[in-house]
Amino acid sequence: MSIDSSVASSAASVSAFDGAQPGNLPSDHPLRTRIADAVRTVRDTTPLAQSFTNFVTINLVANAQLAVGGTAAMSFLPDDVLDIAAICGATYINVGTLLPFYKDALTDIAQGLHEQGRPWVLDPVAAGLGATRTAILESFRDVPPTVVRGNASEIIVLDRMWGLADADAAADDATRPAGVESVDEVDSAIPAARRLARHLAAHSPNGQGAVAVSGAIDFVTDGTHDYRLPGGSALMTKITGAGCSLGGVVGTYLAVADPLTAAMAASLHFNRAGEIAEAAAHGPGSFQTEFLDALWNVTAEQIADSTILQ
Amino acid sequence: MSIDSSVASSAASVSAFDGAQPGNLPSDHPLRTRIADAVRTVRDTTPLAQSFTNFVTINLVANAQLAVGGTAAMSFLPDDVLDIAAICGATYINVGTLLPFYKDALTDIAQGLHEQGRPWVLDPVAAGLGATRTAILESFRDVPPTVVRGNASEIIVLDRMWGLADADAAADDATRPAGVESVDEVDSAIPAARRLARHLAAHSPNGQGAVAVSGAIDFVTDGTHDYRLPGGSALMTKITGAGCSLGGVVGTYLAVADPLTAAMAASLHFNRAGEIAEAAAHGPGSFQTEFLDALWNVTAEQIADSTILQ
Amino acid sequence: MSIDSSVASSAASVSAFDGAQPGNLPSDHPLRTRIADAVRTVRDTTPLAQSFTNFVTINLVANAQLAVGGTAAMSFLPDDVLDIAAICGATYINVGTLLPFYKDALTDIAQGLHEQGRPWVLDPVAAGLGATRTAILESFRDVPPTVVRGNASEIIVLDRMWGLADADAAADDATRPAGVESVDEVDSAIPAARRLARHLAAHSPNGQGAVAVSGAIDFVTDGTHDYRLPGGSALMTKITGAGCSLGGVVGTYLAVADPLTAAMAASLHFNRAGEIAEAAAHGPGSFQTEFLDALWNVTAEQIADSTILQ
Repeated sequence: MSIDSSVASSAASVSAFDGAQPGNLPSDHPLRTRIADAVRTVRDTTPLAQSFTNFVTINLVANAQLAVGGTAAMSFLPDDVLDIAAICGATYINVGTLLPFYKDALTDIAQGLHEQGRPWVLDPVAAGLGATRTAILESFRDVPPTVVRGNASEIIVLDRMWGLADADAAADDATRPAGVESVDEVDSAIPAARRLARHLAAHSPNGQGAVAVSGAIDFVTDGTHDYRLPGGSALMTKITGAGCSLGGVVGTYLAVADPLTAAMAASLHFNRAGEIAEAAAHGPGSFQTEFLDALWNVTAEQIADSTILQ
Repeated sequence: MSIDSSVASSAASVSAFDGAQPGNLPSDHPLRTRIADAVRTVRDTTPLAQSFTNFVTINLVANAQLAVGGTAAMSFLPDDVLDIAAICGATYINVGTLLPFYKDALTDIAQGLHEQGRPWVLDPVAAGLGATRTAILESFRDVPPTVVRGNASEIIVLDRMWGLADADAAADDATRPAGVESVDEVDSAIPAARRLARHLAAHSPNGQGAVAVSGAIDFVTDGTHDYRLPGGSALMTKITGAGCSLGGVVGTYLAVADPLTAAMAASLHFNRAGEIAEAAAHGPGSFQTEFLDALWNVTAEQIADSTILQ
Repeated sequence: MSIDSSVASSAASVSAFDGAQPGNLPSDHPLRTRIADAVRTVRDTTPLAQSFTNFVTINLVANAQLAVGGTAAMSFLPDDVLDIAAICGATYINVGTLLPFYKDALTDIAQGLHEQGRPWVLDPVAAGLGATRTAILESFRDVPPTVVRGNASEIIVLDRMWGLADADAAADDATRPAGVESVDEVDSAIPAARRLARHLAAHSPNGQGAVAVSGAIDFVTDGTHDYRLPGGSALMTKITGAGCSLGGVVGTYLAVADPLTAAMAASLHFNRAGEIAEAAAHGPGSFQTEFLDALWNVTAEQIADSTILQ
């Protein structure tokens, strides 16, 4: 399934953050350099990121990966995916719309990627819904991805499903309802996101992992450092696949950068393109067209100079 | 499969019907109020309608549901569909592009929806073609949907497949070839559409059902009252998925309205948006973009004040 | 999978070829008349070509077939495909994104099309990758399509897979790496393309076959006559599905024309539309919209008067 309320963000909130404001990452911070380098490297080297993703938004995932400068391959057969994994930069798995055979296929693929030591991105779409999806997500626990991108509810559910919270934290989290969208939802997922990121890093070949929580103000963490990314466009919730294609583009960036930089670069690239597209759009149809154009045209400087709140 | 000749309608034919003309539903008719209310309620409440629909046009179905103000979830697993059915407003099933496992899945889903007493919309795409599709459609007979939306041929075939015609009527229908598109095709499906609507109502939890036949002039009936809806755009036949996405939007409206109102509101919403899009388009590519924008921008008054011929 | 580097061509290279230049097919050559006739016949008769194609680009395949004037049906069930084959003009099979059951389904479909003597187009996407894809493509060897459309690597791999080269030619080909994109890649596939075309013709009900190799300058051959088609747009490599949809449109043309004319008309139609779209586009989003509009609006004369190098 693909419920696209995951990237609800408000362009109006951006104006409060420009300039050398308190909390904004310094303009010469090394992370900004790494983000700009990632954007330029993708455009210069056209890295291949493959995807196992849902049928609803698979076309937009591929087109977004192409529009940021990468290239795309989609597959649903474990042998194909593991063959391609050996020659591509990163793999993206999205559990949105499931077919019955995915349960075995995705379990085998995650195991294979782990054995190969290959980086991958998970979008745990609709985590918590349905026995098949739960079985798939549980099977990823000990062979986890390098980056997880989701909305607040999905991050909270995945953290609980994998049993990452200690007893006290779980009791605290339990006071907030999972699965309900709200203005403060991203904040409600912060403890879960941090725990998840540390879990990913602990299982990662190079000791690094990251989690991106999409919402009115995106939250990205590597488990130690936290960043809030204001901006984007509310129209992103009025096209299907904004979240799915963001996950795919995290995969593209993960092919050339470390997990935190990849999650940051992709989220910022989407937010700036969303704002440009909203200014030119007359509705969700033209928004999608303008959004792909803006992914293509926005500069590395526009992306790397974004407001990044610590 | 997805043969999109199902929404062939001519904008040119609209000019003959504006004003207080004979046969046009009075401007203060309660049905017009219900249609306007449905349009506003969808935009105010963002209802969830889920879909089990074909891979060709699944993205447009979701985007059309979002563009009219609803939200979308797509699934192909019976457990997921029945779980979501309990929390969503309506379900949409489209038998366009089939995979082998759909036969069991769709039979189980229809049975489950019936047992739950949940409203659903069927698009019997290509009814009559292939043994798998026929087996699926036959299995729906005694646990039928709340609304059927199709082209004339599909309505005629479904009526025969379910054995709804009496012997005389069937003999009369048999003089018209099913499966052939023609200018009078919608008229040829009127007896079948009325019988189908009465069959749906007889099996509906609340005693209501409706059938929408798309064509040059759409025909909508609840089995007792008939309405003809002129207008739309011939370019709707030059993009894939106009009919499929109309079915999905009937689902969105069925989440907030009775079957007749839902079928009327969705058909009128599509016709007005089609005319607006055609006026701005330079071909089928820009037509689809403009169409989604127009679904988003057309007002409740423009939809509810449409020509509705009794 | 869908790696869309298959239609990389440069509009800039076109300017060198206009006018009555050496090597350009004479303006009164019968092939130009056949191409113009094919374009007009598709627009006048709306032929049905069905497709068994990948989920990534299935929507664009259908929309491109509609935009050139044809109509589309998509199916994945052998019974449906063979039922439709009997009433449609041509079938298109694309092995891009595979599901497990495709291996048996596609083997049965190719056998059935051969027994029915029906024309079909193959896009051997990612030929050489994965055991399932290889098994499928090998099963087509003795019941082959009427036209193959692919990029240079895919044509080279298919030629080797089917063992069409004699020992010397195979040794010569082996000096060039398959699967690597390069500026001279189309030239590297010419011997393989010619052998493939002769193999298709030898197994064709009417003794005709053709192969189209997409690249910076497309190459089309019937095994005896070779044609080079300069032009197109580099933006075609920045949307997913340019190659897949070209294969679908070859199917549309194959419904009304001989294999060589169909491959030529579709390739030229795409190149001219790509140039028109590039001139109007601001990025890959607007390019796709403009491209569908241009497929619809470009004239039969613009297509048939293209530079065609012998």
